[in-house]
Amino acid sequence: MAVVGVVMGSASDWPVMEKAADVLAEFSVPYAVKVSSAHRTLDETVAWARQFAEQGGMIIIAGAGLAAHLPGVVAAAVELPVIGVPIASGHLNGVDALYSIVQMPPGVPVAAVGINGARNAGLLAVEILALASTELRDKLCEFRRNQAEKVAAQDAALRGRGGQGERLN
Amino acid sequence: MAVVGVVMGSASDWPVMEKAADVLAEFSVPYAVKVSSAHRTLDETVAWARQFAEQGGMIIIAGAGLAAHLPGVVAAAVELPVIGVPIASGHLNGVDALYSIVQMPPGVPVAAVGINGARNAGLLAVEILALASTELRDKLCEFRRNQAEKVAAQDAALRGRGGQGERLN
Amino acid sequence: MAVVGVVMGSASDWPVMEKAADVLAEFSVPYAVKVSSAHRTLDETVAWARQFAEQGGMIIIAGAGLAAHLPGVVAAAVELPVIGVPIASGHLNGVDALYSIVQMPPGVPVAAVGINGARNAGLLAVEILALASTELRDKLCEFRRNQAEKVAAQDAALRGRGGQGERLN
Amino acid sequence: MAVVGVVMGSASDWPVMEKAADVLAEFSVPYAVKVSSAHRTLDETVAWARQFAEQGGMIIIAGAGLAAHLPGVVAAAVELPVIGVPIASGHLNGVDALYSIVQMPPGVPVAAVGINGARNAGLLAVEILALASTELRDKLCEFRRNQAEKVAAQDAALRGRGGQGERLN
Amino acid sequence: MAVVGVVMGSASDWPVMEKAADVLAEFSVPYAVKVSSAHRTLDETVAWARQFAEQGGMIIIAGAGLAAHLPGVVAAAVELPVIGVPIASGHLNGVDALYSIVQMPPGVPVAAVGINGARNAGLLAVEILALASTELRDKLCEFRRNQAEKVAAQDAALRGRGGQGERLN
Amino acid sequence: MAVVGVVMGSASDWPVMEKAADVLAEFSVPYAVKVSSAHRTLDETVAWARQFAEQGGMIIIAGAGLAAHLPGVVAAAVELPVIGVPIASGHLNGVDALYSIVQMPPGVPVAAVGINGARNAGLLAVEILALASTELRDKLCEFRRNQAEKVAAQDAALRGRGGQGERLN
Amino acid sequence: MAVVGVVMGSASDWPVMEKAADVLAEFSVPYAVKVSSAHRTLDETVAWARQFAEQGGMIIIAGAGLAAHLPGVVAAAVELPVIGVPIASGHLNGVDALYSIVQMPPGVPVAAVGINGARNAGLLAVEILALASTELRDKLCEFRRNQAEKVAAQDAALRGRGGQGERLN
Amino acid sequence: MAVVGVVMGSASDWPVMEKAADVLAEFSVPYAVKVSSAHRTLDETVAWARQFAEQGGMIIIAGAGLAAHLPGVVAAAVELPVIGVPIASGHLNGVDALYSIVQMPPGVPVAAVGINGARNAGLLAVEILALASTELRDKLCEFRRNQAEKVAAQDAALRGRGGQGERLN
Repeated sequence: MAVVGVVMGSASDWPVMEKAADVLAEFSVPYAVKVSSAHRTLDETVAWARQFAEQGGMIIIAGAGLAAHLPGVVAAAVELPVIGVPIASGHLNGVDALYSIVQMPPGVPVAAVGINGARNAGLLAVEILALASTELRDKLCEFRRNQAEKVAAQDAALRGRGGQGERLN
Repeated sequence: MAVVGVVMGSASDWPVMEKAADVLAEFSVPYAVKVSSAHRTLDETVAWARQFAEQGGMIIIAGAGLAAHLPGVVAAAVELPVIGVPIASGHLNGVDALYSIVQMPPGVPVAAVGINGARNAGLLAVEILALASTELRDKLCEFRRNQAEKVAAQDAALRGRGGQGERLN
Repeated sequence: MAVVGVVMGSASDWPVMEKAADVLAEFSVPYAVKVSSAHRTLDETVAWARQFAEQGGMIIIAGAGLAAHLPGVVAAAVELPVIGVPIASGHLNGVDALYSIVQMPPGVPVAAVGINGARNAGLLAVEILALASTELRDKLCEFRRNQAEKVAAQDAALRGRGGQGERLN
Repeated sequence: MAVVGVVMGSASDWPVMEKAADVLAEFSVPYAVKVSSAHRTLDETVAWARQFAEQGGMIIIAGAGLAAHLPGVVAAAVELPVIGVPIASGHLNGVDALYSIVQMPPGVPVAAVGINGARNAGLLAVEILALASTELRDKLCEFRRNQAEKVAAQDAALRGRGGQGERLN
Repeated sequence: MAVVGVVMGSASDWPVMEKAADVLAEFSVPYAVKVSSAHRTLDETVAWARQFAEQGGMIIIAGAGLAAHLPGVVAAAVELPVIGVPIASGHLNGVDALYSIVQMPPGVPVAAVGINGARNAGLLAVEILALASTELRDKLCEFRRNQAEKVAAQDAALRGRGGQGERLN
Repeated sequence: MAVVGVVMGSASDWPVMEKAADVLAEFSVPYAVKVSSAHRTLDETVAWARQFAEQGGMIIIAGAGLAAHLPGVVAAAVELPVIGVPIASGHLNGVDALYSIVQMPPGVPVAAVGINGARNAGLLAVEILALASTELRDKLCEFRRNQAEKVAAQDAALRGRGGQGERLN
Repeated sequence: MAVVGVVMGSASDWPVMEKAADVLAEFSVPYAVKVSSAHRTLDETVAWARQFAEQGGMIIIAGAGLAAHLPGVVAAAVELPVIGVPIASGHLNGVDALYSIVQMPPGVPVAAVGINGARNAGLLAVEILALASTELRDKLCEFRRNQAEKVAAQDAALRGRGGQGERLN
Repeated sequence: MAVVGVVMGSASDWPVMEKAADVLAEFSVPYAVKVSSAHRTLDETVAWARQFAEQGGMIIIAGAGLAAHLPGVVAAAVELPVIGVPIASGHLNGVDALYSIVQMPPGVPVAAVGINGARNAGLLAVEILALASTELRDKLCEFRRNQAEKVAAQDAALRGRGGQGERLN
């Protein structure tokens, strides 16, 4: 069964949201992908979110651009943790989506990540699931170590390029 | 029967939204007031909007602050014209509400007015209703005339204060 | 006779405003297109708007960029509902046009849609006209149904692409 | 043992962050309060976060204003879910804190809530903890019901005030 | 005859615009004050601007808040130099008025000063008139000298307050 | 002798500022072009501005990007009317330059035009000079007429393209 | 002799800039205070900065609001490190001053601190001077220790207030 | 030994940060380059900064994008002057990085330069070092002279292109 639901209002959001799915796959977290709109298919969105929760789904990652209502509508429909991904579409560079997602009124929270930050949304879901899974916790530690090693490798490579007269490392 | 529905997510929005109601009362347009939240009472909001439409309601004026989803959710629920009023609450002066209301994705329109612009929301509703009512059209013309006369009166008053050496009018 | 007037300050706005016209054509709403500037041809703009109203025109959709005065000037000239489309031109991504259109002072309303949101402007006009036309109301319902079906089709297509190890739908 | 850590950079942030603590108390979630600065006491902050995690702490809620580094530094120090609360202090109304918290680079997520949104931060923590507790889940459902009832009560009260000639409900 | 016209959309703008009038009085420049709205009294505004120009008026200072159309409408009506004063009213601190005034499309210029910068608008008018008046030019030089002397006086006063152990001047 | 000085901080600003020069040439207004920086050549800039004024120059158009100090420095150096052109360079789309130019403190005015609005800066200079020249005034009227005719021509052309089923003009 | 110059455009900036002076006094760094405007007393400002440098002054802290040119003008006049303090005055909350100070073009740097961040400007000056003074370096270490201890004291005090049922520390 | 440390969170920041290194090389200032992340390698970053300081390093230039914590974390770790370079990455054009860097809380300063302003960061470091080096001071003077000469050369070149009928220089 899917543990994380990745929902977006339009298939055109997939290139951004795919990065959340990639992280989940990387951590072997079962997930479902859904296209459903808060505006064009409001009833279906609410119904899907509730069915997802009833079937044991635990976290919903919802991505949307412009007046991004999808994360908030999903958060209103279920009591699960909802992670909102503001997507940069249109002319305001995603600031509209960021405000529409992060400024939720008291009582119905959404966890916002950065603009187009679907990768971090996936990681946040993994961190939450790792609270109840030593396996995921171990994987997370390894993920962090790998990540740190990549920075170290970049550091080594950049120094290697060297050569400017006065540079000392 | 109510022709215009004035809906807001919290009773604390009433001091702003009251100005829409005042305009409707001024033009003798029957209206209903409703407190219902897109987040805290999503199902009731959708149900109310649909019932309002079925009972012959024609226009919905929806006001909300912060991540203002109420106008968009109502617009998703019914095919009626929906006028959205961004309310300045919280720390972003209503810019969050403005973006959450005006930047609706293609397919489900909301007619946005200015921040806390409930009075104009009421007037817009009257202009729409006046398309099918010569009585309202006449009242609108009179309203505009009165409004212009007030400007003229202000002009006269300001000149009257006069007295600076070199001012010529 | 034209029921909706689509006016813009420059022919260069047509690629955006065309989407309003397309929607009106899709719903078989008779419309007129006009290029007239609030700044370069102020008198002609006012005269056109008044003539449009006198000849039975019902709604004006006005698009403008930068210090977008066209919707406000038209709204000052006639008592018809005016829908303003902020156009993204210049260096501020349309925020200048959005503020110039949506922040109208009390007494003379403009119904703003999103930046470059001409399609929604057309739909809003249709929703207004549908208040007095069961034919348009039926078409709107069908339009919404089609729109929802497209979302469902996108959903099906995205799941079909499947294949990631752990994805479950 | 504390399950949620509520950390802030200065005691002056307490009036905002207290609302997170209130929610946790309301749901009987054991929590610890900590004042520690990402800038003034960097080492202590990192040490506290790691100790909190080692002692079985599960979620950290970190609030900060201005160039709000606290949530990000905590998220860099531990693999736990970190919820960031942008606090409105200084002259930018919390937009600086919001950007400093929500725009985390890929690899180290922070879950942002709205400006001064500490109450939602507490609720988000409860939603996460409820994934592993039917008791919390039941309380959450009840919380949502109560919340909905308050909206209904506001609705009833507002209509009761009635009296304008043309208002119909 | 008035040489400069000071026009505003509402008498409530007078406390700001008065500072432009004060400067003109200080330089003994004959001026007229006018309340006329681009939205509520569009025809009167255009007529007033044209009459002002025909009667030998030379410069118009126009102040407006929100979606500030007044300077642009006046600039469209006459070929005189128009100075626009964005007034901070409403919830956007005058940024809306600034954009509505300064972002004029090519072909119809408005000279914008800062938000609530009516004093500078008056001075700019004086600078323009001084191009054809040695008397005004001399007064301007004296004005600048006085202004510089006030800075020097402030400098002297601040040092005088002195007393901190290590301050050296 | 040059009547208008067109100054910019870098030759890279010329593609924008050229439009001011083009307008001046179109109206046969003698002008001088100058590259001089408020930061890199502060003394030369001040000296040039004063020399320009002493030799009978009347108006200075100053363009600058980023922390655009050039117009303000020139305005501090001479009592002539200074028109500031905010240039969009760097990452803030010219908003930095706009604020740096338009928000001048009381006492030393700069007349700001829109971002990259050099053409309007040129026209504003012409409008100022036309106060003392019937020839320029006539040219301005003709310029405005031509401009209006171009709008009318665009209107005719757009209608001519016609062909959509329901369009009526 | 003064080592640090604290300059501001108006005595009204003193309440903010005083905090820079306080820090310098706290570290026994000799400093001079100067009121001089980039716009009202341009020549004097340039002359003062150069004299300050010639007399052995080492760092200039310049504070300004609105279109804040003072730090940039001083940086153009001398080769000393210049620290700019954006002051929140007027209607843009200091964003105008921040952009006017921080967005300096390449070649003439200014070191910007936060809006009204005069205290940090003073500390930055101390850090620079400490590069050549073990005494200042020791004082800085002590300053940082004291600062950390204050955070620890706040932490202790906040926990002491305790009492909520479920709080565990 | 390296006197200046140039640190960035990712090798992808090098094309921007390289300009700081170029300036340092131009002035023969020994520098070290380091890739280290405030989030991905927090401990290493702190350790590197402290080691750099212990080995006699004097100034750290830190560049970062998005929620740019690197300069602040480094400034928290050592008492050296830290220059922060906001890097434009992601969708907010570097405004997020600017706010995250410049709005440091009182007590731990960072010297911010403009967005992508690494060249000025390098120059600022040189200005600081020149306080204790007449050689660097002389080079700085020469640098400024060359810079001024380039402006003069651009001025000559632009005038040379001449040819417009009415241009007078």
